[in-house]
Amino acid sequence: MTTALLTDHYELTMVQAALDAGTANRRSLFDLFTRRLPEGRRYGVVAGLGRALDAIDAFRFGDAELGFLLERGIIRENLADWLSDFRFTGDIWGYPEGEVYFPGSPVLSVEGTFAEACILETVLLSIYNHDSAIAAAGSRMTAMAGERSCAEMGSRRAGEWAAVAAARAAYITGFASTSNLEAGRTYGIPTIGTAAHSFTLLHDTEEEAFSAQIDSLGEDTTLLVDTYDVEAAIRKGIELTGGRLGAIRLDSGDLAIMARQARDLLDDLGATHTRIMVTSDLDEWQIALLQGAPVDGYGVGTSLVTGSGHPTCGFVYKLVARASSDEPDAALISVGKRSKGKNTLGGRKFAMRRRGEDGRAESEVIGLGAPPANDGNDRDLLIPIVTGGERVYSATLEDARRRHIDSLAELPLAARRISKGDPALETLILDETGTLTTNPYQAAPVVTNI
Amino acid sequence: MTTALLTDHYELTMVQAALDAGTANRRSLFDLFTRRLPEGRRYGVVAGLGRALDAIDAFRFGDAELGFLLERGIIRENLADWLSDFRFTGDIWGYPEGEVYFPGSPVLSVEGTFAEACILETVLLSIYNHDSAIAAAGSRMTAMAGERSCAEMGSRRAGEWAAVAAARAAYITGFASTSNLEAGRTYGIPTIGTAAHSFTLLHDTEEEAFSAQIDSLGEDTTLLVDTYDVEAAIRKGIELTGGRLGAIRLDSGDLAIMARQARDLLDDLGATHTRIMVTSDLDEWQIALLQGAPVDGYGVGTSLVTGSGHPTCGFVYKLVARASSDEPDAALISVGKRSKGKNTLGGRKFAMRRRGEDGRAESEVIGLGAPPANDGNDRDLLIPIVTGGERVYSATLEDARRRHIDSLAELPLAARRISKGDPALETLILDETGTLTTNPYQAAPVVTNI
Repeated sequence: MTTALLTDHYELTMVQAALDAGTANRRSLFDLFTRRLPEGRRYGVVAGLGRALDAIDAFRFGDAELGFLLERGIIRENLADWLSDFRFTGDIWGYPEGEVYFPGSPVLSVEGTFAEACILETVLLSIYNHDSAIAAAGSRMTAMAGERSCAEMGSRRAGEWAAVAAARAAYITGFASTSNLEAGRTYGIPTIGTAAHSFTLLHDTEEEAFSAQIDSLGEDTTLLVDTYDVEAAIRKGIELTGGRLGAIRLDSGDLAIMARQARDLLDDLGATHTRIMVTSDLDEWQIALLQGAPVDGYGVGTSLVTGSGHPTCGFVYKLVARASSDEPDAALISVGKRSKGKNTLGGRKFAMRRRGEDGRAESEVIGLGAPPANDGNDRDLLIPIVTGGERVYSATLEDARRRHIDSLAELPLAARRISKGDPALETLILDETGTLTTNPYQAAPVVTNI
Repeated sequence: MTTALLTDHYELTMVQAALDAGTANRRSLFDLFTRRLPEGRRYGVVAGLGRALDAIDAFRFGDAELGFLLERGIIRENLADWLSDFRFTGDIWGYPEGEVYFPGSPVLSVEGTFAEACILETVLLSIYNHDSAIAAAGSRMTAMAGERSCAEMGSRRAGEWAAVAAARAAYITGFASTSNLEAGRTYGIPTIGTAAHSFTLLHDTEEEAFSAQIDSLGEDTTLLVDTYDVEAAIRKGIELTGGRLGAIRLDSGDLAIMARQARDLLDDLGATHTRIMVTSDLDEWQIALLQGAPVDGYGVGTSLVTGSGHPTCGFVYKLVARASSDEPDAALISVGKRSKGKNTLGGRKFAMRRRGEDGRAESEVIGLGAPPANDGNDRDLLIPIVTGGERVYSATLEDARRRHIDSLAELPLAARRISKGDPALETLILDETGTLTTNPYQAAPVVTNI
């Protein structure tokens, strides 16, 4: 399946006009970044890079795509010729998946000809804006869950393919599993699930349903116990398994109270190893509220896959430097628009997390045109991802999970608070001489840009 | 691309257990509906049906899918055999796309064996919950835009495939076009776009960029005029086209003031036919605020594709009736869970919009087990969609656009207000004798259910 048409019309008309004007091959550098975090959020989480690289690999214009574009008059023959053997040949570097980011962090930089870097804009932004929004929410949830296990169960509340990506992003932030089978197949994420209310209702009695489930799935299964009467259901489940039932799931009512009552009942019945899983409208605040309840695992749906109030990030993709002329070896010059409230910091960026001697992160440092000085405690953030068109980034999802744990661990403790607050780190912009300059994003309004 | 694994793990373990217990073939009836609208919304809009039917057609388990499921121990051989030639053979009926709906409206009903109706749950909910959320937002935006044209431009703020679906849903609610090329190819939706700020910045001067664009795309193109200085850009665009410039686009600042200034300037320059398009963080409230400004078209992104505060609907898919025994001709009996705050109205539903003599809609009437009496002014809402496994629904997107206009037009005028309010119509539940019974959804809390 090609990703080439997951692209805004204007990317191609721009490339058409640049091709006609002879400027399409000017070396260009685009940054993908956000001017600010969603209101009250203390950090962002990079997710989507692995998928973005797959999307670049699949960014191919076949006869069907070119035929459509020509027929609609969106491109002409000279652009069709160019697109017909399109393959990104430039360089990409950026933050690895799982890394945290802040306003102005250059999470992805794409350098190539204007044409090849420009036409990737839409699909890169779609993937980053979606996946990182889920990751930001997921990270807050796993932080509140602590040692308890979180399962992603939101597929039914998200577009059917977005759901697969959401499961992947949630996994990066420490979710243990997903309900989504395609995410299991495509990304190797553990999948879980046993039964819904419909299974109980299909049978003449709850006992028949439970027996059928236990016979088929084993005593270690999870029984959903709130179809009729929770206490009666728990007693039945324990009776049918001789106390060896794996878990119960509570999906309605006041979960803190119900979990307490269920735990007491299970313990009274001798089922001290039967776990309690809760679902139903969980978000990071609900998970926090349930910290004192005897819950073993959380199943999270809607709130996770919709970014817990922020279903998209504010990532934009901006031309920040380009060749000063059409000569092949022309030097890059910084560029940036001056639109009201949406100005862009031009130039090539370097990024570093400044850390104290104790390893604690102190600020996000962006160097313009030159790397900021690293005193040995600091950590460089940019890694090569694509070099000369070849993918060099090979981190696995497990790597991303570790990266997330590590980068979160070095942030100030306040970063993990779910109440509204400022970004956990200030972003400092240094010019080529290492001098602090104004950060245009820190106080900018949230903007949409198309 | 198969849609078979866009499915929650538990759908398959349920079918496995039912198959093992001999209950998988019990005739079953599932309803897709919402217990309530998002807070403050006055109506919902059905979108996703056409895509859902495509997803059902593509719901096939090939060797790769079965191999994955077997290897992971999610299914066993008896279920693999059954899945290997899976094809939905039942009946589906529901509301056509573009129709409005209310709490309790049975927007889709799926009848078949338990197994075949159950395993479609996740993908049906994913599509309906996503697409209808976009449609609900889109409908509010086109209502505020009135005769002015709206363009969908949110691809970069949504998952890359969800974006294609979002363009389709927006089109159903009266958007004139999309920026998304795949939506243009797959659904025939008109696509639009000209240039971003990067195109201007690629060139040494704004004049060079504008000239390149006009040379390539013609004088009727839309110039983005806020990269540097809006007034200078407008003057240049008009100069370069001898006043025949198609349109300008404003993407920053106070759009009402800037549109007024731009219109005055264009008129002063004699460019009275040059249109003004605005983009930048538009939503239904911004569009309403701009009603008095000289704007010709709106480009809407983030807010539209994220459902303007409600990125998912509350659709659930519930077993409401099933065969009373395993006999092939056993009668259906109503079922419904009694979970706290999440109880379900069992039984087969019929749906009608009650209208007065003036054609104005007065209520949503749901008949349980029997169609409500129609006095001749009323309108039946359910149409056959799949009969005996064969697709009989053939409405086009243009049909859906008309259906949306017509169904919105007959609602009370208050339905179109974007301020928070109650559903525009009350949902009345009638039993088989036509007697009004309690509506369990009208006052229920918003819930998530997995």
